[in-house]
Amino acid sequence: MGTAKQLMDNVMRRSKVDAILFWNLENIRYLCGFTGSDGVLIVSAHERTFMSDSRYEEQAQGEIRDAHFQKYKQKVEGVARLLQSLRVKRLGFESSAVPYESYQKLKEKLSRTSLVPLAEEIRWLRTRKDPEELNKIRRAIQIATDSFFDASRRVRPGVKERVAADFLEMRMRRRGGEKPAFDTIVASGPRAALPHGKATDKRMQEKETVVVDFGVRFQGYHSDETKTLILGKPDAEQRRIYDTVRRAQEKAMKAIRPGVGVRHIDVAAREIIAREGYGKFFGHGTGHGVGLAVHEEPTISPRGRGLVEEGMVFTVEPGIYIPGWGGVRLEDMILVTARGCEVLTVLSKDLKENIYAR
Amino acid sequence: MGTAKQLMDNVMRRSKVDAILFWNLENIRYLCGFTGSDGVLIVSAHERTFMSDSRYEEQAQGEIRDAHFQKYKQKVEGVARLLQSLRVKRLGFESSAVPYESYQKLKEKLSRTSLVPLAEEIRWLRTRKDPEELNKIRRAIQIATDSFFDASRRVRPGVKERVAADFLEMRMRRRGGEKPAFDTIVASGPRAALPHGKATDKRMQEKETVVVDFGVRFQGYHSDETKTLILGKPDAEQRRIYDTVRRAQEKAMKAIRPGVGVRHIDVAAREIIAREGYGKFFGHGTGHGVGLAVHEEPTISPRGRGLVEEGMVFTVEPGIYIPGWGGVRLEDMILVTARGCEVLTVLSKDLKENIYAR
Repeated sequence: MGTAKQLMDNVMRRSKVDAILFWNLENIRYLCGFTGSDGVLIVSAHERTFMSDSRYEEQAQGEIRDAHFQKYKQKVEGVARLLQSLRVKRLGFESSAVPYESYQKLKEKLSRTSLVPLAEEIRWLRTRKDPEELNKIRRAIQIATDSFFDASRRVRPGVKERVAADFLEMRMRRRGGEKPAFDTIVASGPRAALPHGKATDKRMQEKETVVVDFGVRFQGYHSDETKTLILGKPDAEQRRIYDTVRRAQEKAMKAIRPGVGVRHIDVAAREIIAREGYGKFFGHGTGHGVGLAVHEEPTISPRGRGLVEEGMVFTVEPGIYIPGWGGVRLEDMILVTARGCEVLTVLSKDLKENIYAR
Repeated sequence: MGTAKQLMDNVMRRSKVDAILFWNLENIRYLCGFTGSDGVLIVSAHERTFMSDSRYEEQAQGEIRDAHFQKYKQKVEGVARLLQSLRVKRLGFESSAVPYESYQKLKEKLSRTSLVPLAEEIRWLRTRKDPEELNKIRRAIQIATDSFFDASRRVRPGVKERVAADFLEMRMRRRGGEKPAFDTIVASGPRAALPHGKATDKRMQEKETVVVDFGVRFQGYHSDETKTLILGKPDAEQRRIYDTVRRAQEKAMKAIRPGVGVRHIDVAAREIIAREGYGKFFGHGTGHGVGLAVHEEPTISPRGRGLVEEGMVFTVEPGIYIPGWGGVRLEDMILVTARGCEVLTVLSKDLKENIYAR
């Protein structure tokens, strides 16, 4: 958390604000440990105050560190009162999280305080993971991996997508996961063309490709991974598309090292896919950070900004989605190391390990 | 959906806006049927456009009704382009959902469009449920009820809270629920003083009170209910507190009918609790609407505004929480009828049905 403290001191100095209002719950958990679902954190040069209503009073007092607790009845009013007592003249606020309505109310109540939107300045607050965070991420991955093995026999012709997904989620919980990181995707045949194709009552069939995208939360931290299985001997097109996505993924991973523009990683994957003529069938970004949120910074996409830094954890997940035909996505999580990256996820993404023929 | 159309025509006329930008995903689902997790809806007098990125293209085209689909690469840019092509001069936007940062970007790109924050005007958009919505809510409640019976033998001395909660959640899924409505609360003994005490590895013990707050989602709609069980013959204090909460709940329910201020319902419950000397141990509001969101309008609290209307569905859930001792909360869902209310949840909240003695 030393880094976070430094970052905030810098932000306060550069933006000339006396305090920062945090609204995003993952940032709040990161900075003070509160795990509930309502509250704000106010960080000033000398103190940190976590505020919430009476529902969370006891929980907050047990959980928070590096901050003291103060109760409010109504959020904006409570925040305004605290800021007045702290004599805050310029308040930075998390503009990606504070809704316009709350901003408006805060402004009304704090007529003599300047409200300074902070977005880029704090967007990367959580991108570099410390060893404790990494441990939790690794544990989440381990639970997901073991659970996938438990469930893999259920990914076969005749079984409903939903049955496979439910079983996988049940195993993740049984193995100590807090909850699935998101609705598990099991998308088979033409449905694999839906990048977010939640499991349905469709039965998987012989020869189909099946995209399985799953993850779990452990002590607040997430895993996120995608395998694409082929239920039979792959035909030429399946082989070609799978191979293209796999090469795109490998190329992107090779491009990762501290100092490289995150956009460059996306370009690396996209070039391979475009070269094979599938450019327009890869509509999403190549990856995203994973931590207290399943999707967080950095954003690895054509519009991604900033440089790769040691300690970042993000996904590398190119895909090809062809309406009517289906799709292939391969997703791993990586940790940026001093000279490159370490692949954190362990399930194989090689084609030969993903052919589920009888 | 006829009511929603009317409401929006009225809002557009009164606020003199040419279109409304919806950002909240439950409102978007309500208005056009999209169930994914990213996108915006733009409603103008003559057309509705749902916009999202390529990940959701196929899904949206399959799901949406009363709207056409348009793809964007970046949200704010896409929205700005559409609004320019529609020649929108005054744009209403959902200010409780649009983050300040997005508002700011939109304003930059739309220098000749006035942006009009809408909050109160649309806050109650989804409060009155139509028969189709009610059916889904009733189904959710039925799943939760049956699952509670399945799990009730697990709520007993010696069992970990988490084991009971997991089993209940597993049964809800098995019985056709999409997912738990929230992290199931099983809070026993002193932990029952935490209104949001998620289940832990603590074992329940003889004579403790156990607050079990659970719900499930079915076709997007939620149930939400709380029972408080007493694991043994209740002592005088348990009996007194339980009885107080129960009477507060009944009093609040009796106060419900169309035309009454929602605040009045909160007052009804609060008075009973205050009269018994527990006023300061009831820190939260008396209820909240339930529908596509587990917590939605109306807000039944000392600060709640507006009048009860026929067709609303909300919870009635007073509680008493005493640090160190524990707590009692009783929560039912009700439907406002022409002359009063119908209790939708079916599990008994009477003390004698909630004594789990050997």
